[in-house]
Amino acid sequence: MKIIIVGATGTMGKHLVSVLEKEHEIIKVGAHGGDIITDITSTESIENMFKQVGSFDALISTAGPTYVGPWKKMTDKEFRKGLEGKLMGQINLVLIGQHFIKPKGSFTLISGALTHEPQLNFANASAANGAVEAFVRAAAIELENGVRINAVSPTVIEASPQYFPFFPGEIPVTMKQLEYGFRKSVFGANTGQIIKP
Amino acid sequence: MKIIIVGATGTMGKHLVSVLEKEHEIIKVGAHGGDIITDITSTESIENMFKQVGSFDALISTAGPTYVGPWKKMTDKEFRKGLEGKLMGQINLVLIGQHFIKPKGSFTLISGALTHEPQLNFANASAANGAVEAFVRAAAIELENGVRINAVSPTVIEASPQYFPFFPGEIPVTMKQLEYGFRKSVFGANTGQIIKP
Ligand SMILES: NC(=O)c1ccc[n+]([C@@H]2O[C@H](COP(=O)([O-])OP(=O)(O)OC[C@H]3O[C@@H](n4cnc5c(N)ncnc54)[C@H](OP(=O)(O)O)[C@@H]3O)[C@@H](O)[C@H]2O)c1
Ligand SMILES: NC(=O)c1ccc[n+]([C@@H]2O[C@H](COP(=O)([O-])OP(=O)(O)OC[C@H]3O[C@@H](n4cnc5c(N)ncnc54)[C@H](OP(=O)(O)O)[C@@H]3O)[C@@H](O)[C@H]2O)c1
Repeated sequence: MKIIIVGATGTMGKHLVSVLEKEHEIIKVGAHGGDIITDITSTESIENMFKQVGSFDALISTAGPTYVGPWKKMTDKEFRKGLEGKLMGQINLVLIGQHFIKPKGSFTLISGALTHEPQLNFANASAANGAVEAFVRAAAIELENGVRINAVSPTVIEASPQYFPFFPGEIPVTMKQLEYGFRKSVFGANTGQIIKP
Repeated sequence: MKIIIVGATGTMGKHLVSVLEKEHEIIKVGAHGGDIITDITSTESIENMFKQVGSFDALISTAGPTYVGPWKKMTDKEFRKGLEGKLMGQINLVLIGQHFIKPKGSFTLISGALTHEPQLNFANASAANGAVEAFVRAAAIELENGVRINAVSPTVIEASPQYFPFFPGEIPVTMKQLEYGFRKSVFGANTGQIIKP
């Protein structure tokens, strides 16, 4: 399969590249590195990325910038980080990418447990996740030619110990569990699902 | 109680005004009419509205513009209607309104069944609803001084027969059920809840 990983240079993305590149052609996309540099907050940049890649079988996104910080400082301005990044950035990957993806291809977006289990400082990520998950369910009934879409929604992951203090009582998701969440979406037949790895 | 209803001139808003104004002081806010004209897509306009109202006990929002139309035509541009309107508009009512609301006051936002039960043509509303609902859960653990926040999430309502064809198999919510959903949020003690009337 030809698989685009947007966010390939990040914590999740690097791991997914390392396990999937053994068997698949991986196009690594990042904001500052990878095979193709793309800014998902720009529709023009997304268009250019897809034009360079051409047709593909699957897109995985692990790119979802959000504002993390004290509620007291959260105004419209801070909130827009997640709105333009994790939310609209990922939605635009689908709205634009549907014109480049092969029949029976799949989109797998990243959300997170914060949708249903909020934590202090992360309201922007919660809202972005909630939008992404509801969008996935809605897009699943609209996409044509057998194209599928799911989201993977982990709690804090093993490889991100810097977040542990913010997620009291959350048992970190192992990298293997995370990988298998993405495998279920990309290589399975489900659509419109929120996969909790 | 002094209750602000944003969207007071709409289908839901008019009904809530008529049943609540018998016992409460209602400040009617609309985009084109009401006691105060406000555009929730502008933080400046929201600020001005709160400055005019002063302190208050509860805010109900039934203002949530979204793009409704064929998926094929849904690009970043159309998607932004719900992003700026139902999503960021309502979130800004809370981010700004928290500085004006009385201790133990409440915010009640509007979402809708499309969060979990998508329908063709309504992906933008689904995404906005998902964001609003996740935001409500996150804001509930951040708001101080006993301030509460909930969302009311109805399926299509009795008073909107024009939407019935788009919601096959959905039994419309009666105006009484809708009213009681809002009553539960405003006069109850819950917070962080998505109320299905
Ligand atoms: N880490 C966790 O514990 C955890 C748990 C649950 C959910 N999540 C969610 O998972 C996602 C990824 O997490 P992570 O820890 O892997 O993040 P990360 O290490 O910060 O990696 C983010 C990746 O996204 C790319 N990126 C950022 N902004 C971009 C933009 N505007 N355009 C294109 N690419 C962009 C980065 O590119 P560059 O490196 O080139 O800048 C990088 O490849 C986030 O949305 C996060 O909320 C994380
Ligand atoms: N109707 C249903 O069956 C149904 C079911 C579930 C959920 N919902 C959701 O409930 C919400 C309200 O529905 P509705 O049928 O009552 O809508 P509606 O009749 O169109 O009324 C919308 C109200 O919001 C105001 N408004 C619109 N844009 C605004 C803006 N930018 N700034 C300030 N106010 C603005 C309108 O003001 P003006 O009239 O002055 O322009 C009006 O008072 C929507 O978000 C809808 O998605 C509706």
